[in-house]
Amino acid sequence: MPVDPHAAIEVTAFKWVPPFAHGFVKDMRIRWALEEIATPYRERLIGGIFEDKSHDYLADQPFGQVPVYKAEGISLFETGSILIHLGEKDERLLPRDPSGRGRAISWIIAALNSIEPTLSALMLVGHAGAQKDWVDDAKNAVRPFAESRLEMLSNALGTKDWLEDRFTIGDLVMIDVLRTAPEDELVAAHENLSAYVERGTSRPAFKAAMAAQLDAFARNNPDME
Amino acid sequence: MPVDPHAAIEVTAFKWVPPFAHGFVKDMRIRWALEEIATPYRERLIGGIFEDKSHDYLADQPFGQVPVYKAEGISLFETGSILIHLGEKDERLLPRDPSGRGRAISWIIAALNSIEPTLSALMLVGHAGAQKDWVDDAKNAVRPFAESRLEMLSNALGTKDWLEDRFTIGDLVMIDVLRTAPEDELVAAHENLSAYVERGTSRPAFKAAMAAQLDAFARNNPDME
Repeated sequence: MPVDPHAAIEVTAFKWVPPFAHGFVKDMRIRWALEEIATPYRERLIGGIFEDKSHDYLADQPFGQVPVYKAEGISLFETGSILIHLGEKDERLLPRDPSGRGRAISWIIAALNSIEPTLSALMLVGHAGAQKDWVDDAKNAVRPFAESRLEMLSNALGTKDWLEDRFTIGDLVMIDVLRTAPEDELVAAHENLSAYVERGTSRPAFKAAMAAQLDAFARNNPDME
Repeated sequence: MPVDPHAAIEVTAFKWVPPFAHGFVKDMRIRWALEEIATPYRERLIGGIFEDKSHDYLADQPFGQVPVYKAEGISLFETGSILIHLGEKDERLLPRDPSGRGRAISWIIAALNSIEPTLSALMLVGHAGAQKDWVDDAKNAVRPFAESRLEMLSNALGTKDWLEDRFTIGDLVMIDVLRTAPEDELVAAHENLSAYVERGTSRPAFKAAMAAQLDAFARNNPDME
């Protein structure tokens, strides 16, 4: 079990978040990658997403989010950056050959900048427009951007198991983006994308990461205090 | 002048786009980085953003966008991925020390996943809702997410010239994201961010990149045929 209070790697996560966010906070991506390479890490649990962050924490994470990764004198923020760093340490996450490495990093960025923003725009409109009479019209207008990108992603995946010829951190991020889409139908519209998400979330490392995130929330449930 | 038809590096760009997009197409980021390190590249100009893309092109760029970068048997897509690759080749773009390197890559991802999506959500709502009676309400509801992130970015920049102690590709992407924000007031609300964008776009390499993108559009202006 990679969570180890004496590990050299420190990863920040929230102490607790409301149930709707359980399993969806972005330290999942780093826990998952570390589980894939059986590398221990210690958790540093910080105040929840709506709590004020200390000046020190903002120096490490300018947007007050999690995770921050610290080890060997390096402090990293943003899951994409942390994953690239971990990938460079272990070939199981990121191929060593320049072409395979380049494509995997391209897929990380594609997940974060070509797919996730179309999904988060839809989520943002739904959130910002909750209980407004225009919310359905606005979501209907914004949704086609997400649908179009997912269709192109489905075409790129085709009948392959992974986006390239093996599992990489490009798949890890893409699957995490897809599984947290704001409307299940978006991914379910493409049989190969659904199967791809299922394939990724069936990996033992994903399941161990999920258990670790949920365990931290269970230990810090404010209702149990 | 880095544009050279005989260069080893190939970068795709659109042959022509409508005037509102001149200077804003994302090959700018790669042209700018290559100008910073005086590295020649050849342009491969492809059909515009609304034209169908060939099957071959989609194999290189699954979303039919530009740029694609090709050199030495490597094919990369997504500007973040290409910039990291270029940074690894030249210290002027990306520090060699692990801590500086890690922070610079964190800022690249922050630009692409923590700042740009809040701006593109606002742009998407404006675009999708053009001439709809709900568009202003929806933009007003979504705008605070962008404002909040920009305020945190302004705090992180503080009185520094660059996000860290020197210019890196993290600044290059961040400045490109900020200068293309859908509403000028968003960045102008923070004096230090406005000055930061001005500082970046005053660099000779930025100006040369802009001239090169505009030159390609001028040569392929459909009204001149």
